[in-house]
Amino acid sequence: MYNAGRINKLGTEKAFAVAARAAAHAAAGGTVYPFHLGDLNLSTPKNIQEAAGRAMAEGKTGYCPPAGIAPLRDALAQDTNSKRGTKYSAENISVQPGGKPVITKFLMTLMNPGDGVLCPNPGFPIYESQIEFLGGKVLPYPVVPAGDYFTFDLDAMEQLITSKTKLLIVNDYHNPTGAELSTAERERLVELAVRNDLMVLLDEAYFETHYDNMANSLASMPGMAERSVLLYTFSKKFAMTGWRLGAAIGPCEIIDVFNKINVNIESCTCQFVQWAGVEGITGDQTEPKKIVATLRERRDVGVEILNSIPGVTCIKPNASFYLYPDVTDLMNRMGFGDNYDAFADDVLKKTGVSFCTRIHFGCPLPGETRRYLRLAFSGINANAIKEGLGKLKQYAS
Amino acid sequence: MYNAGRINKLGTEKAFAVAARAAAHAAAGGTVYPFHLGDLNLSTPKNIQEAAGRAMAEGKTGYCPPAGIAPLRDALAQDTNSKRGTKYSAENISVQPGGKPVITKFLMTLMNPGDGVLCPNPGFPIYESQIEFLGGKVLPYPVVPAGDYFTFDLDAMEQLITSKTKLLIVNDYHNPTGAELSTAERERLVELAVRNDLMVLLDEAYFETHYDNMANSLASMPGMAERSVLLYTFSKKFAMTGWRLGAAIGPCEIIDVFNKINVNIESCTCQFVQWAGVEGITGDQTEPKKIVATLRERRDVGVEILNSIPGVTCIKPNASFYLYPDVTDLMNRMGFGDNYDAFADDVLKKTGVSFCTRIHFGCPLPGETRRYLRLAFSGINANAIKEGLGKLKQYAS
Repeated sequence: MYNAGRINKLGTEKAFAVAARAAAHAAAGGTVYPFHLGDLNLSTPKNIQEAAGRAMAEGKTGYCPPAGIAPLRDALAQDTNSKRGTKYSAENISVQPGGKPVITKFLMTLMNPGDGVLCPNPGFPIYESQIEFLGGKVLPYPVVPAGDYFTFDLDAMEQLITSKTKLLIVNDYHNPTGAELSTAERERLVELAVRNDLMVLLDEAYFETHYDNMANSLASMPGMAERSVLLYTFSKKFAMTGWRLGAAIGPCEIIDVFNKINVNIESCTCQFVQWAGVEGITGDQTEPKKIVATLRERRDVGVEILNSIPGVTCIKPNASFYLYPDVTDLMNRMGFGDNYDAFADDVLKKTGVSFCTRIHFGCPLPGETRRYLRLAFSGINANAIKEGLGKLKQYAS
Repeated sequence: MYNAGRINKLGTEKAFAVAARAAAHAAAGGTVYPFHLGDLNLSTPKNIQEAAGRAMAEGKTGYCPPAGIAPLRDALAQDTNSKRGTKYSAENISVQPGGKPVITKFLMTLMNPGDGVLCPNPGFPIYESQIEFLGGKVLPYPVVPAGDYFTFDLDAMEQLITSKTKLLIVNDYHNPTGAELSTAERERLVELAVRNDLMVLLDEAYFETHYDNMANSLASMPGMAERSVLLYTFSKKFAMTGWRLGAAIGPCEIIDVFNKINVNIESCTCQFVQWAGVEGITGDQTEPKKIVATLRERRDVGVEILNSIPGVTCIKPNASFYLYPDVTDLMNRMGFGDNYDAFADDVLKKTGVSFCTRIHFGCPLPGETRRYLRLAFSGINANAIKEGLGKLKQYAS
C-alpha cells in the first residue's frame, strides 16, 4: 500500500504495553495496583458537569470561533495572569481540544525541517515523536536528581546548542520526575533562551498540581512572554482528562497561526465543553482544591513506603502526580541488572504492582547509570497505594 | 520572529469575511438573511443530549482508547455497513474530533511531498489548504452542471493524472454544489482510481443529508474498500456541529496509523461525546428524520424562488444543505460582470441577503465562464428563506 514516508518517523506512547500486561494479569484473577495509569480516578467536579449540561440545553451545540469562545479566552487570560504574573489578554489565547495539540501546533508553527529542538529526557514521549514526525532534530537534555529535587542539567543543555538549535521544550513541573527549577536555574534557563534566541514551549500541564508552595512560571520572566507558548490544560486540576480541553497561550502572531491551524484541522473545540471550562475557572474552587489535597495524601503515603524499601530511594515531588524512585540497587540486588522488562514482569506477577519505567520516557542517555520507575498516583487510592507498595516492600525484603 | 516556512502554505476558510460583513450590517440595524452560515440552526436531538449527560454522571470523563470507545466503533461499523453495503468492523474505525481531522490525517498518512492530489473545484477549501501545507500538489478537477444535477468532470480528471498522481479526494454529495454521481459515473471513477492505483478520500459528510432516494457509497464498489478512507461525521445528520464528533473508516493498516496520530495530536475524542454518538446512531431516529425533513422543506422553498428570478437558474440538489445558483445573467444584466465582491456587497446592503460565492471554494478554473453563489439553508428557517429570497427577487426585477 502507498504510504507517506513521514509515518516511519511517528512515535507513540509506549505505556500501552504495560496496560495490556496489567489487564492480562487482572483477567487471570490477579489483583492489580495500577501505578501505570496516567489518568485520574477522580470525578470531574459537579458544578463543571452541570455547566456543560446547561450549555447543551441552551443550544450551545453549534460551531464556535476557531480560537474558542470569548468568555473562555477572557477567563483563561485572567486566570493565567493572576497565577503566573503574566499580562495576557484574550487575543493571546487559542483554545484547544486538550493540552497535547499545543505540542504539535507549536512545532508546526515554529520548527523548520532540520531545526534542533531541546527536549527533556526522560520526558513526555510525544515531544520526540512530533519533533521527528515534523522533520526536526531531537536534542535531549538530561533531567537529573539534585539532592532533594529533580532538575534540568543546564550545563548539558548549553552544550547541545548550536546555530541550528531553534526551539526549546521546557516541562517545568515535569513528567515523569516532578522536576521543578529553582529560581537561580530559571534565571539561567531564561538567559540561555534569550541569548540563543530560542522559541520556547512551556509545558505547564502540572502547574496547578503543585503541593507545597506557589508555583512560579517561566512565562512571567523578562524576555519570555514574546518567545514562549504556554501549554495550558484543564485535564489535571479539574479531573477533566477525557473532556479534551486545553489552550495555547502566547504572542498574538503565533496564536493567530494556531487559530488558522484550528480552522484546518478541527474547526473548533466542543462548544459546551468550553462553557464548562469557564465554570471550572471562574466557579467554586472547593472541588479542585480537594483534588490536589487527595493527590498530596497519595504522594505522601507513596513516598514514605518507597523510601522504607531497601535499595529504593524516592525524591518527594512538589508537583505532578508521579513518583520516580531510583531502584538501581534493588534491581542489582535481585539480579535484574538493567532489565526493566523482566523486573516489571516479576513484580507484577508476584505483587500485582504495575508501573512504567524510565525507558517509557526516552532512550537512556550516554553515561546514565541509575535506573528508575515511574509510579503514577493519579489512578489509585491511598489505601491501595499502601497495600500495593507494602507488597512491593515484602517482595524486596 | 522565527517561523516555520510551511505556515506560508497554510490556507483557510475565506467565508469569515462574509460573516464579518453580515455582522456589520446587522450591527448597523439591518436585517440579515444568513445564507452564508454553514452551521445548522437546529437543536441536537434531546436523547443525544441526555446520553451525554448520563455518561458524564456515570464518570465517563476520563481518557479512552485513542481509536475511540468500543461501543461507538461497533455502532459505526454496523451503521456504515447497513447504509452503504460495506463490510467494516470496529478495527476499521478511528473516532475523530469531527469529520475535518480526517482530511489532515488522510494526507499525513498517505501523501508524500510532491505527490499530486486530485481535488474537486469548486470544493471545500480545506482540501487545498492541507494538501499544500503538507507539501503535496493540488490537481483541481471541475465540478460542473450536467443537465439537472452537478457532477465531476471525469474527462478532465483523467487528463490530470500522471505517474505522480497518488491520491484522489471525492466529495460525492458535494459542498458547495450538491453534486452527486450517477451510477455510470461512479463506475467510471472507480475504474480510474483502480487503474491508476490512487488512494481515495471519500468525504461523505452529506451522505445522510440526502433527500429524494437512498444515497449510494463509492465505498461498497469493487476495489474501493481497500484503497479508501471514508470521512464520517455526526455534525450534519444529528445537528451536532459544535460537538466535534466524526470518524475515519478504512483499511486496518491505514486506521492503525490514524490511531497512532490520534495518540500524538489529541489523545482521544471527548469520551462522553462518544457515548452520545452511540445514542445518536442506535437510538430513536425520529428527530434526525425531522432534521432532514426540515432541510428538505427549506431546499424546496429556496429553489423555487431562485428559479423564478430573472437571470438566475438553480439546480435542485439531492444532497447537502446548499443551493448553488448560476447568477451569470443576473450579474451581467446588473453590470457587476465577474465582480462577486461588489455584487454581494450590493445585495447585502439592499436586501440583507448574505451568501458565499464561487470564489470561496477555490480559484475559478481556466475556461470557466459561469458565475455562482452558494446559499446555505442550514442556518435559516423556511419563512426567512421566503422573505429574504423574495427581496432578492425584487432587487433583481
